[in-house]
Amino acid sequence: MSSTETAASTVITNIATLVTNDPSLGDGSPLGLVRDAAVVIEGDRVVWTGESSKAPATDNRVDAGGRAVLPGFVDSHSHLVFAGDRTEEFNARMSGRAYSAGGIRTTVAATRAASDGELEAGLVRYLAEALRQGTTTFETKSGYGLTVADEARALAIAARHTDEVTYLGAHIVPPDYAEDPAAYVELVTGEMLEACAPHARWIDVFCEKGAFDGDQARAILTAGRARGLTPRIHANQLSYGPGVQLAVELDAASADHCTHLTDADVDALASGRTVATLLPGAEFSTRAAWPDARRLLDAGVTVALSTDCNPGSSFTSSVPFCIALAVRDMGMTPDEAVWSATAGGAAALRRDDVGRLAPGARADLLVLDAPSHVHLAYRPGVPLVSQVWRRGVREV
Amino acid sequence: MSSTETAASTVITNIATLVTNDPSLGDGSPLGLVRDAAVVIEGDRVVWTGESSKAPATDNRVDAGGRAVLPGFVDSHSHLVFAGDRTEEFNARMSGRAYSAGGIRTTVAATRAASDGELEAGLVRYLAEALRQGTTTFETKSGYGLTVADEARALAIAARHTDEVTYLGAHIVPPDYAEDPAAYVELVTGEMLEACAPHARWIDVFCEKGAFDGDQARAILTAGRARGLTPRIHANQLSYGPGVQLAVELDAASADHCTHLTDADVDALASGRTVATLLPGAEFSTRAAWPDARRLLDAGVTVALSTDCNPGSSFTSSVPFCIALAVRDMGMTPDEAVWSATAGGAAALRRDDVGRLAPGARADLLVLDAPSHVHLAYRPGVPLVSQVWRRGVREV
Repeated sequence: MSSTETAASTVITNIATLVTNDPSLGDGSPLGLVRDAAVVIEGDRVVWTGESSKAPATDNRVDAGGRAVLPGFVDSHSHLVFAGDRTEEFNARMSGRAYSAGGIRTTVAATRAASDGELEAGLVRYLAEALRQGTTTFETKSGYGLTVADEARALAIAARHTDEVTYLGAHIVPPDYAEDPAAYVELVTGEMLEACAPHARWIDVFCEKGAFDGDQARAILTAGRARGLTPRIHANQLSYGPGVQLAVELDAASADHCTHLTDADVDALASGRTVATLLPGAEFSTRAAWPDARRLLDAGVTVALSTDCNPGSSFTSSVPFCIALAVRDMGMTPDEAVWSATAGGAAALRRDDVGRLAPGARADLLVLDAPSHVHLAYRPGVPLVSQVWRRGVREV
Repeated sequence: MSSTETAASTVITNIATLVTNDPSLGDGSPLGLVRDAAVVIEGDRVVWTGESSKAPATDNRVDAGGRAVLPGFVDSHSHLVFAGDRTEEFNARMSGRAYSAGGIRTTVAATRAASDGELEAGLVRYLAEALRQGTTTFETKSGYGLTVADEARALAIAARHTDEVTYLGAHIVPPDYAEDPAAYVELVTGEMLEACAPHARWIDVFCEKGAFDGDQARAILTAGRARGLTPRIHANQLSYGPGVQLAVELDAASADHCTHLTDADVDALASGRTVATLLPGAEFSTRAAWPDARRLLDAGVTVALSTDCNPGSSFTSSVPFCIALAVRDMGMTPDEAVWSATAGGAAALRRDDVGRLAPGARADLLVLDAPSHVHLAYRPGVPLVSQVWRRGVREV
């Protein structure tokens, strides 16, 4: 066998608990758990999973030492192209002190002022940090530029590091358009969209009081769709509103936040294929009420769990932390939270090559320093991710 | 200068934010913050702290790269000498499934069955995990043996790894004494105390309905004190009770948990020198109501923050996680939470050589991958500790 003909095969064996997310494998649960398992990798793909004793012969062998192996986390919602720091704003909020916070505007000003190199260095740093914590697929957005040039460069930088790039020119109405938001919507759906679409897969809008209303959001997402981008939407985070139902109506891949939902919103999500992406880091860092994952799951909605990593409202890059919060405060079982942070994230990105460990899937996986996936909730805050493999290569 | 005469000196410089916990230094706050700072270490001690530009000449120089430096965390409450696993009990509790949980008894049975080597290997593993997260001083307890021999061996094992060893024969009444708790108290205050006292500095009791009442707790702590041990106490965790006031009456070093407090309890703590040690990991992992740190701080009580790391109710070894919870859910500012996890823990162990970075203190410190200590709360769940020095030696 020549290496030019076939990639070398590697078996990771002595896995106490393997999460495949394939119900046809293992115990038949949604996580498709296999005990005393092995995974065989060839090139960048999984080619076999099952019980260790039945694993086929391979070129190389790695002993997982009785640890758990999971699909790499799929973080389908982050905002990582930014500059500046909002430590003092956070500190004042948590200390009950007055502070004239500029919010997103503070980050917009710093991001516009930063060089391309500074923005890319920041992105690379946060992606490396996320990778060390087990995230092997990440979506990231623009939204701190809010000019044609600044949005386009943010997306161009992001596209050098991930396929999952989202155009969020409609994050807020920037101060320069405060008197004429309609003109800003025109820019976002016109010249800015033209400049940004080549770098992005997705279009997103922050549909919320003080940002964009339902009609504006519909116009923006529809324009993006006409330009080949698929909609996703920041919906119902701070208050009830039209975002979730609009997301389902437009067949958006995901409605993100979903903190304030009417029964009609839940019914809409259950009737379509739009994923509800919950972002507990935001509720944690703003002391807000938690989204009710249990209600969504009981209604049959597909739920994803992501970090919302951004310097204002949720500066965590830790998917394990979000899993622990979801179990403690959002009514998810440990199994459900792990599924939502892997297969759920993949569904929110309409991907079936990641978020699972079955033959044909990408060999993106993590090894926990613990015998089961439940330890991600059982041992909150502890950095348990001890190895990360991406496309068949160990990177951590 | 010969190395046999004087230890080599090292300066850690380019520190964006230095937490000294010495109000006579820096900004005069309780944290004694120095910006653009340096720390000089000689042997195992800090010999100088101040602004970088004024640092004295040293043999070696380490560049902190604009990061924050803090005293190593002082985790004054953990239960790390145990065997066995309670993953399924946790999973069932968080999933709303019935499970015939044995609670502490499950761990007692597994611990009694384990070899000395197994117990020590577990302890070493958890201490290393805590060290990687910045904990340089840790207290740990017996309490899963509950026989003379099993308690004594747990303490002897612990004493090989830390000076802060606590005899907790009075954790629960073991099943073999269920019919005669008075006989168990007699054992704990008699033969077991004699066997355990040589290995321990502290005596502790779980004063709670279903464990030991006020009279039993008083008898146990008084006997321990007569044998040279200093009292500390698990008090008012699950319900109101006599524990906190008993702790103050006996001048215990710390009353731990303090979740259910009357005004008289708070007044008692404010009147004495007993530290209130809060353990938010326990409330997190049992979905219990949070202790009110704000109320204690406003009354002038000294508050410590620790992990309670144990396999049943709080299996986190992460002090940073506890800081983030204390800020989010217990009314502490980021500054207060950082103080409580360093100087507060030291106060709960009646130590003044750790928990601060001023001349004469032990050179136990951590370097954060962030410019300020506030990031421990601002970036929850992210493993930010990038270096740990203990007794002047870099260990992580």
